[in-house]
Amino acid sequence: MTTMHRVHNFSAGPAVLPLVVLEEIQRDLIALPDVGMSILEISHRSKVFESILARAEADLRQLAGVPAGYKVLFLQGGASLQFSMVPMNLLGANATADYIDTGSWAEKAIQEAVKVGSVHIAASTKAEGYSRVPTQSELRLVPGSAYVHITTNNTIEGTQFHGVPDVGPVPLVADTSSEMFSRPIDVARYGLIYSGAQKNMGPAGLTVVLVRDDLLGRSKAKTSVLPIIMNYAVMAEHGSLYNTPPTFAVYVLGLVMRWLIARGGLVAMDVANKRKAAKLYAEIDRTGFYRGTAQKDSRSLMNVTFRLSSPELEKKFIKEATAAGLDGLTGHRSVGGMRASIYNAFPEEGVDALVAFMRDFERASG
Amino acid sequence: MTTMHRVHNFSAGPAVLPLVVLEEIQRDLIALPDVGMSILEISHRSKVFESILARAEADLRQLAGVPAGYKVLFLQGGASLQFSMVPMNLLGANATADYIDTGSWAEKAIQEAVKVGSVHIAASTKAEGYSRVPTQSELRLVPGSAYVHITTNNTIEGTQFHGVPDVGPVPLVADTSSEMFSRPIDVARYGLIYSGAQKNMGPAGLTVVLVRDDLLGRSKAKTSVLPIIMNYAVMAEHGSLYNTPPTFAVYVLGLVMRWLIARGGLVAMDVANKRKAAKLYAEIDRTGFYRGTAQKDSRSLMNVTFRLSSPELEKKFIKEATAAGLDGLTGHRSVGGMRASIYNAFPEEGVDALVAFMRDFERASG
Repeated sequence: MTTMHRVHNFSAGPAVLPLVVLEEIQRDLIALPDVGMSILEISHRSKVFESILARAEADLRQLAGVPAGYKVLFLQGGASLQFSMVPMNLLGANATADYIDTGSWAEKAIQEAVKVGSVHIAASTKAEGYSRVPTQSELRLVPGSAYVHITTNNTIEGTQFHGVPDVGPVPLVADTSSEMFSRPIDVARYGLIYSGAQKNMGPAGLTVVLVRDDLLGRSKAKTSVLPIIMNYAVMAEHGSLYNTPPTFAVYVLGLVMRWLIARGGLVAMDVANKRKAAKLYAEIDRTGFYRGTAQKDSRSLMNVTFRLSSPELEKKFIKEATAAGLDGLTGHRSVGGMRASIYNAFPEEGVDALVAFMRDFERASG
Repeated sequence: MTTMHRVHNFSAGPAVLPLVVLEEIQRDLIALPDVGMSILEISHRSKVFESILARAEADLRQLAGVPAGYKVLFLQGGASLQFSMVPMNLLGANATADYIDTGSWAEKAIQEAVKVGSVHIAASTKAEGYSRVPTQSELRLVPGSAYVHITTNNTIEGTQFHGVPDVGPVPLVADTSSEMFSRPIDVARYGLIYSGAQKNMGPAGLTVVLVRDDLLGRSKAKTSVLPIIMNYAVMAEHGSLYNTPPTFAVYVLGLVMRWLIARGGLVAMDVANKRKAAKLYAEIDRTGFYRGTAQKDSRSLMNVTFRLSSPELEKKFIKEATAAGLDGLTGHRSVGGMRASIYNAFPEEGVDALVAFMRDFERASG
């Protein structure tokens, strides 16, 4: 097993994975120990896979402190399919859902919900270029709405909620794709949490959904119209094995859960992630040569977005950074600029390398 | 790279993959050559992944002779999601779709289509325990139906169409999940072909769809109501990159396509698969100790299903076979008995080993 030359991967997702996890996958790729088949070849109905799935779920529950009364589902289709599944399962014919509009992904969630039923925008920071998330006092919630939907971390705009909005007794539904398991999460505050795995949890092609049992009643009421594999209640009843799940991605997620537990869990991750982000934001704020795009109290610990004084200079920055082994720093095509995604598995020395590069670049441009 | 002890894997899917493909995945798992990142970590928006995707598509097109005028889509959700996507995209409000009912998977496709619109069963062999597929003369097609749906290979029942039904000018839609690329396919005979990758093409979590361009107009007409990632036209316009695709599964599929081309393509596969199946069916038919469940002219070359005189004897057979390194021979839980799935990557020596075991078992039971 050679660990070949690896660059620093600042990609927003699919994103860097822990090297020890990659090494374990590589070691067992031809045949899992005592199984005689590759993880890529084993039946999802086999005892081996059932045990991989059960352990992944148990470790996830332990890691995040998922309370009893919540199901853990392993699905496909990413957050994009959840944008449809959430309203299709949870939004009744005569009800309205509240959505908090904090960026491009929230907008996409809203666009899909509108196809299903009545949607109310409880708050939006669009007029401010999505440079922050709204405060509690700005929320205009519909009394008795079906649910309130938030995007906890806005990957493209580099903003993040640093508290859980208070929505009273209404179920809070959260897209946590780009921050899941980067910090402690109080699952009991939510009705449903969904997250594409390809940032902090594993490879692309797997979506984790945590759903409170009582909400499954809404899915059951729609059994005659919902596509069966888009029905949360069906997937819950079958333990995510109604149809063939993305077996390999579940296996890798399980390894990442174990790695997170071994590293000290979510509190330790939070400490490390805050330290990494603080170093980067300190450099951004140091002289004014770089400009952070998110307002300070809404800054994301996962996706650090910043600009230079001109698109030409930004292009030069990205080109030279890439040449220096700092990869994936291009901002999302919809907003431009730079973005450094520094998820759980992104090593602190990569942040140090970027900070050093930023200083050198500023000096050379001075 | 050690190639550890591997069993003979007769699983119906996820299923055996070519060892050389597994070895290439293993070799490059930590970092793709000249990339410095694992395939599990690279952005789906990167040039590296774009080139992996483009090559997988080009090789698939070459392998199967996909004509111009067809799009190749790489999707998620397996055949199960296609059961819904096909009618949601292709079945208009005042139209009827014809379904040919040849087994458990066809039934599931029908159950999902009924949720969407009007369905007509053009033929069914359910009364015969799905022991065969219907003949051309048995088809009762609705004139001007939206499409005719068939399941070309019935994984559970061990039956297979050995010709393409003539459905006139109506688009033929085929679930080819458990036979895709096991033999030549005349794509021009179909309007849409869909296939879960986890049998002959790659790992679980990837679905390949071939769709004729004119049918995309039906999806476009439903843009305001279809979930966006379930809209074939949207996925086609974005080259399967509207959202994050299952990047690793696409990479593995690409390697399998290259392996198939290097082995001589679909004609060579057909020859090898027929030889493997003939050996197994000859042993089943040899004395009457074993009994094939499919009628002879409908026998599947991929999933060879057979019984013994009692469930007890079948249990003993499976237990002893497993102990002898012949794994995954249990028939689907809905039908019982034995099933030997012998996809492209299943080696002929595995068939020989099973035939030898069957002879020994018969002798010992005599």
